[in-house]
Amino acid sequence: LSGAARSPADMVTAEYGPAGAVGASRSPAELVGAARTRQPRAVARLISLVEDASPQLREVMALLAPHTRGAQVIGLTGAPGVGKSTATSALVTAYRARGLRVGVLAVDPSSPFSGGALLGDRVRMQDHALDEGVYIRSMASRGHLGGLAASTPQALRVLDVAGCDVIVVETVGVGQAEVDIAGLADTTLVLLAPGMGDGIQAAKAGILEIADVFVVNKADREGADSTARELRQMLTMAPRGPGEWRPPVVKTVAARSEGTEELVDALSAHATWLADSGEGRRRRTARAADEIVAIALAGLREKIGDLRGGSALPDLAEAVVAGTTDPYTAADRLVGAL
Amino acid sequence: LSGAARSPADMVTAEYGPAGAVGASRSPAELVGAARTRQPRAVARLISLVEDASPQLREVMALLAPHTRGAQVIGLTGAPGVGKSTATSALVTAYRARGLRVGVLAVDPSSPFSGGALLGDRVRMQDHALDEGVYIRSMASRGHLGGLAASTPQALRVLDVAGCDVIVVETVGVGQAEVDIAGLADTTLVLLAPGMGDGIQAAKAGILEIADVFVVNKADREGADSTARELRQMLTMAPRGPGEWRPPVVKTVAARSEGTEELVDALSAHATWLADSGEGRRRRTARAADEIVAIALAGLREKIGDLRGGSALPDLAEAVVAGTTDPYTAADRLVGAL
Repeated sequence: LSGAARSPADMVTAEYGPAGAVGASRSPAELVGAARTRQPRAVARLISLVEDASPQLREVMALLAPHTRGAQVIGLTGAPGVGKSTATSALVTAYRARGLRVGVLAVDPSSPFSGGALLGDRVRMQDHALDEGVYIRSMASRGHLGGLAASTPQALRVLDVAGCDVIVVETVGVGQAEVDIAGLADTTLVLLAPGMGDGIQAAKAGILEIADVFVVNKADREGADSTARELRQMLTMAPRGPGEWRPPVVKTVAARSEGTEELVDALSAHATWLADSGEGRRRRTARAADEIVAIALAGLREKIGDLRGGSALPDLAEAVVAGTTDPYTAADRLVGAL
Repeated sequence: LSGAARSPADMVTAEYGPAGAVGASRSPAELVGAARTRQPRAVARLISLVEDASPQLREVMALLAPHTRGAQVIGLTGAPGVGKSTATSALVTAYRARGLRVGVLAVDPSSPFSGGALLGDRVRMQDHALDEGVYIRSMASRGHLGGLAASTPQALRVLDVAGCDVIVVETVGVGQAEVDIAGLADTTLVLLAPGMGDGIQAAKAGILEIADVFVVNKADREGADSTARELRQMLTMAPRGPGEWRPPVVKTVAARSEGTEELVDALSAHATWLADSGEGRRRRTARAADEIVAIALAGLREKIGDLRGGSALPDLAEAVVAGTTDPYTAADRLVGAL
């Protein structure tokens, strides 16, 4: 593996430090060039630009586009307490043992904080802090233009161009986040743990439809076998045609790295299926379409926001209050003014 | 009070029944005409059109516009368990005693269900079910185009034209909903209960800025006086200029209708201040502007969605995947195609 030489201090800065303060004076072209030679500070700075929805992002994305490599994006999700961080860490170790470069994006869709704010949650990742083949970053996505849909694919682009072969996007499976992550990933990995009533929960939450690989983690606990069995049974009932992917159920004890090799094998098998079936290309195209739409809508929202400064919107609002026009007609005029 | 004669059966249909099934064949003009003569079935049908984001809404809103009357919209919010429904019911009784017509919109921003689905929660409202001067409706807002921002003002328009003098919009104060409600209301009423650590919560959640009137409900419980005192103290610290509104703190026991008269007086005083200071007009105009923007964005989102069917978006997405263009340039082309 190549990669620029770097000190442990660099690594800490890249992962946990105030990345915004580093390299702020470098141009987008310089940053992208440095990220391509895998300089962690440049990678950190570029992801900060994504998080801050910086005006420079447009230029950055144009510079990144020709260097797209096509890392496998693995979405890892599950309820709180199933061991997502531990599983991610075990996956990183396993991929590193196979000589692959790994990126980790821990996305917290509910946090208004960015970057280092989730440090506490990531402490266990420090096993990998000195490994130059690993890049780890926590990202907040709430409140940004387009949210998860716009910022995560952009961060994925940065990590892809920075040489990651595999990128794990880890997010807590609450509400809409897990469905969003499935839309962003090539392979969606859903973690369950025994004794949490997960089988039924899974069916309820529509997880059966989004998961490509299931992991029953904490498999040394009571009930692991029955959880796996229940899950396999439910999967059997789902109708799948010939050539369709059948999600495997892998049992792991991530804290002891048990079952991780089997898990990596399952993820690799899915990557092969994605390539052979054409589904991989379909997913990437759908993801790009979502990203384009999110950026387009964010731009339109901004343009409409700019109109608040002028007289068009206030005048239209006055007319609606007076009852001389209705809000739909006013909206038409507003869009016409764009 | 005028109002079309109606049977108890009518009332039940209007409030809890499958409104969509009633009057479905009437034209928007007929429905608006009937709503103006306060026929509850027509009101129910019009609000169902709002909830379903019906294509007829545009015509309905155009028909309603000239008949805008200007009901006082009271946003009532608070944490779960503070007694919002009981307080709303007590307010309805008090307003009815003053001869005013009252509308109640119970908005559940987290529920994917509409209309009658929240029936259980509204059972205590049945005190008013046979009163023809009261219109009660539960509304779900999640998932609709524009959500709370678009659908609630439209439902308010319906109730306004249907002759309501006061409209109470009740919503649970969780997450963003209370701030959204404040943006929709003329007067925002925040309910607290003693012993819930509410004082500190209030300061945290920015409730101090959005509330026009505070209610310490369940004032017969221990800690009510200290909650009210703490709140008043915090309000004293907030800098307010001369002529600015100073939110009063009213103590109530809504379940026994204690303090409700004082509350209605406080709400009326705020209405007077709104009119005299010009703030009322400013709020209505801001609300109309938000509504126009929400409708405009929903329309643009729909247009972009239509493009998914054509070849523009898929082609652009393919180009992004291939790295021959970047998502921002693609988004520009997409918007250009609108």
